[in-house]
Amino acid sequence: MRAPKGLEGVIVTSTELTKIDGQAGRLIYRGYDVTELAGNVSYESVAHLLWFGQLPTPPQLSELKLKLAASRNLPRIVEEFLKTVSGVAEPLSVLQTSVSLLGGLDISKKSSTIDSSIALSARLPTIIGGYYRVRHGEKPLAPRSDLGHAANYLYMLTGKVPKDQHVHALDAYFTLLADHSLGASTFVARVAASTLTDVYSAVVAAISTLKGPLHGGAPIYVWEMIQSIGKPERAAGWLRERLEKGERIMGFGHRVYRTEDPRSRVLKRLARQLVDPGLFNLAETVENEARQLLHQSHPDRPLDTNVEFYSSLVLHAVGIPPELFTSTFACARSVGWTAHIVEQLRDNRLFRPEAEYTGPSDQVLRGKPETPAVS
Amino acid sequence: MRAPKGLEGVIVTSTELTKIDGQAGRLIYRGYDVTELAGNVSYESVAHLLWFGQLPTPPQLSELKLKLAASRNLPRIVEEFLKTVSGVAEPLSVLQTSVSLLGGLDISKKSSTIDSSIALSARLPTIIGGYYRVRHGEKPLAPRSDLGHAANYLYMLTGKVPKDQHVHALDAYFTLLADHSLGASTFVARVAASTLTDVYSAVVAAISTLKGPLHGGAPIYVWEMIQSIGKPERAAGWLRERLEKGERIMGFGHRVYRTEDPRSRVLKRLARQLVDPGLFNLAETVENEARQLLHQSHPDRPLDTNVEFYSSLVLHAVGIPPELFTSTFACARSVGWTAHIVEQLRDNRLFRPEAEYTGPSDQVLRGKPETPAVS
Repeated sequence: MRAPKGLEGVIVTSTELTKIDGQAGRLIYRGYDVTELAGNVSYESVAHLLWFGQLPTPPQLSELKLKLAASRNLPRIVEEFLKTVSGVAEPLSVLQTSVSLLGGLDISKKSSTIDSSIALSARLPTIIGGYYRVRHGEKPLAPRSDLGHAANYLYMLTGKVPKDQHVHALDAYFTLLADHSLGASTFVARVAASTLTDVYSAVVAAISTLKGPLHGGAPIYVWEMIQSIGKPERAAGWLRERLEKGERIMGFGHRVYRTEDPRSRVLKRLARQLVDPGLFNLAETVENEARQLLHQSHPDRPLDTNVEFYSSLVLHAVGIPPELFTSTFACARSVGWTAHIVEQLRDNRLFRPEAEYTGPSDQVLRGKPETPAVS
Repeated sequence: MRAPKGLEGVIVTSTELTKIDGQAGRLIYRGYDVTELAGNVSYESVAHLLWFGQLPTPPQLSELKLKLAASRNLPRIVEEFLKTVSGVAEPLSVLQTSVSLLGGLDISKKSSTIDSSIALSARLPTIIGGYYRVRHGEKPLAPRSDLGHAANYLYMLTGKVPKDQHVHALDAYFTLLADHSLGASTFVARVAASTLTDVYSAVVAAISTLKGPLHGGAPIYVWEMIQSIGKPERAAGWLRERLEKGERIMGFGHRVYRTEDPRSRVLKRLARQLVDPGLFNLAETVENEARQLLHQSHPDRPLDTNVEFYSSLVLHAVGIPPELFTSTFACARSVGWTAHIVEQLRDNRLFRPEAEYTGPSDQVLRGKPETPAVS
C-alpha cells in the first residue's frame, strides 16, 4: 500500500481526543467545541478533559491544580543547567534540552505515564521563565503555588502577579492550542511512544519537531511581518512584493481546514479586546490584503488566517516576548502530546512503515579490502 | 485512506539509501549488499556511500576521515555538562541531552546539513566516552585524530589503542547497523526533518525514539538473558518458563524479515571468532533452544535471531560494556539517520497524517463559567 506524500489524508490511528472538521471549521476535544471551552473553563479543566476523559468535578479540579502547582519546581541540576546555557542557546533548544535532562534523572523514572505528564506540563513554564530571566540578566523566580497555570507562567517571566484580563487571554490561548490531532509533533510523539520510550523522551521528540518553521516556528514570522509592514497603507505593497518574489506569507492556510480556522476566530476576538487599536487595525489590514492577494494568486485554495496569525498579537498583548512564542505554544501543546502518548500506550503497536527503494541495484565491490583498523 | 495499525506494510516515501529484501533476507545500501561491505570497506567508506551516493575514491576517503577526525572535539559547555550529569543519568539520556545541547549552540547553526551530519556522527563517540569515564570516576580523554572512527571510539572508553581484531569487528558492526530503512527512529527523524527543523533536533528525536525497549533497547536484554541462563544445560528450562509466563524472548524475530536477518549471520561469524568458546557455545545453545520453542508455539511466524542477539556478544567481545550497547547502536545509526534527513530535505513535504475520531460527540458545557484567573 502506497501512501500519498507527507501521509496527506491517511488515517494512521484512532483517537478519542480531538476531532478536526476541516469542512465546517470546527475543532472538538472529546465532544466539546474548543471555541466553547476557551475562556469558559480553565486550561487545567481542559487538561483534565484530555488526560482523564471528562471535565473535572470541582474536587477533581482542585486536586489537579494542586498536583500541577506542587510539581512546578525544577531539580537543582536543571536550575544550574539553565544558568549555564541560557546565555548561549535559543529558547526552544533550551526547553528541548531541559526536558531531555529532566527525563534522564532518576526522579523521573518511577512515576506513571499520567503523573509524568502532569509533572512535565507543570515544569515547562518554570524552564521557560528561568531561561528568559537568566538570558536577560535577572534571577530566576520560584514558581507561585497560589497561582493557576497561566497566571504562574506570566508571573515567572515578569515577577508580577498579572492582570486578570491577561491571565484570561493566555488561559484561552492555552486551551485553543492544547491539541490538534496529528500535527507533525504529535504524530512524532506517538511514533516515539510506540517503541515504549519514556514520556519525557517522546515529548523531547515532539519539541524537536515543533521547532521547524513549517510547524511551530511561524508566529514569530507573522509578528516580524506585521512589524516590518508597520503601517496599514504599506500592507498591500509589501505583500505584493513578497508574493511576486515567490515568498510564502506566514499565518495563512492550513492543510486540514477548508475554511476559517476556528481558533483564529477566537484569537482575533481576544486580540481586538487586548491590543491597542492601531496595532489591531494594522494586523486586520494585513489580513484583508493578504487574503485578497492570495485569493487572486490561488483562487482554488482556501487561504484564510490560521492559528498563528492572531496568536502573535494575543501573546504580545499579554506580555510574552516574540522569542518565546514557540516555547509558549509548546507549553500549551504539552497536554495534547502527553494525552496522545497515554492513548498510544493503551493499545500500542510499534510504528514501522516501509520505503520504496529507488536506488541502484546490484553494485559489486571492486579492489582489495580496506583495512579499517588503526588510522 | 485507512492505514493498518503501526503503518505495517505502508510505503510512506521513496529512498535511494537502503533496500530490505525481507523474503530473501538481504539488506542493500545503494546497491551494495551489506554483508559484502561489512569488514571489507571501512565504516567511513559506508558513511560516504550513504551520505554522498558512492563509495569514496581514496582521496575522498582521506578527506572524509580528516573531517570526521577534526570534528570530534566537544565545545567546552558540553564537556562541562557531561561532568555534571554523567553521575545521575543513564547513558542514552545523556547522549540525547548532549546532542540537543550541541544543536542549540550557535556554532552548530551555520553549517550545511551534510557538514552538520558529519560533525554530529564524529562527536557521538566523544560524548559516550566522556560519559562512561566520568561515570566510572575517570577523566574524559581527548579524541585521537590519528585513529579511525571505530578505533577512536574504543580508545575513548579505555585510553588504550585497541587491538586490530576488535577495531575490525566494531567497524563491521557499525556498517551492519548504519541504516535499516524506516525503523521507528529513522521514520521519526524524517518526520521531524519535514518541518524543516535542524539536523541536531531531528537526530535528538531519533535518539528519543531509539530508546524504547521495542526498538534500540533490546541488546542489553539479550545479554542479561544469556548471563542469567549461565549454562547451556539450563537454556531450555529457562526459556520454557519464560514462554509459559507469556514473556517475550528478546533477540528473535523482526517485522520485515521472513527469514534470517543477514546482519545476524555476519555478527554470529564475528562472535565465533572473538568470544571465548564457552560463551559462544552458551549463546548458540540459547539460540537453538529458543528457535525450537518459538517454532513450537508460533509455527506460522519466522522467529530467527535478529540483529540484537549476536550484537550483544560482539559488542561485549570488543570491550563495550552492556550499559553502552544502545548508545553504540545510536553511533552506528547516526549515519543512516542523517542520510535520511538529507534525502528528506531534497524533496520535502510536511508529514501530517490524520486520525479517525472515535470519541464522544456533541457534549454541552453546563454550569457557569470558571474563572481561570488568579488562583
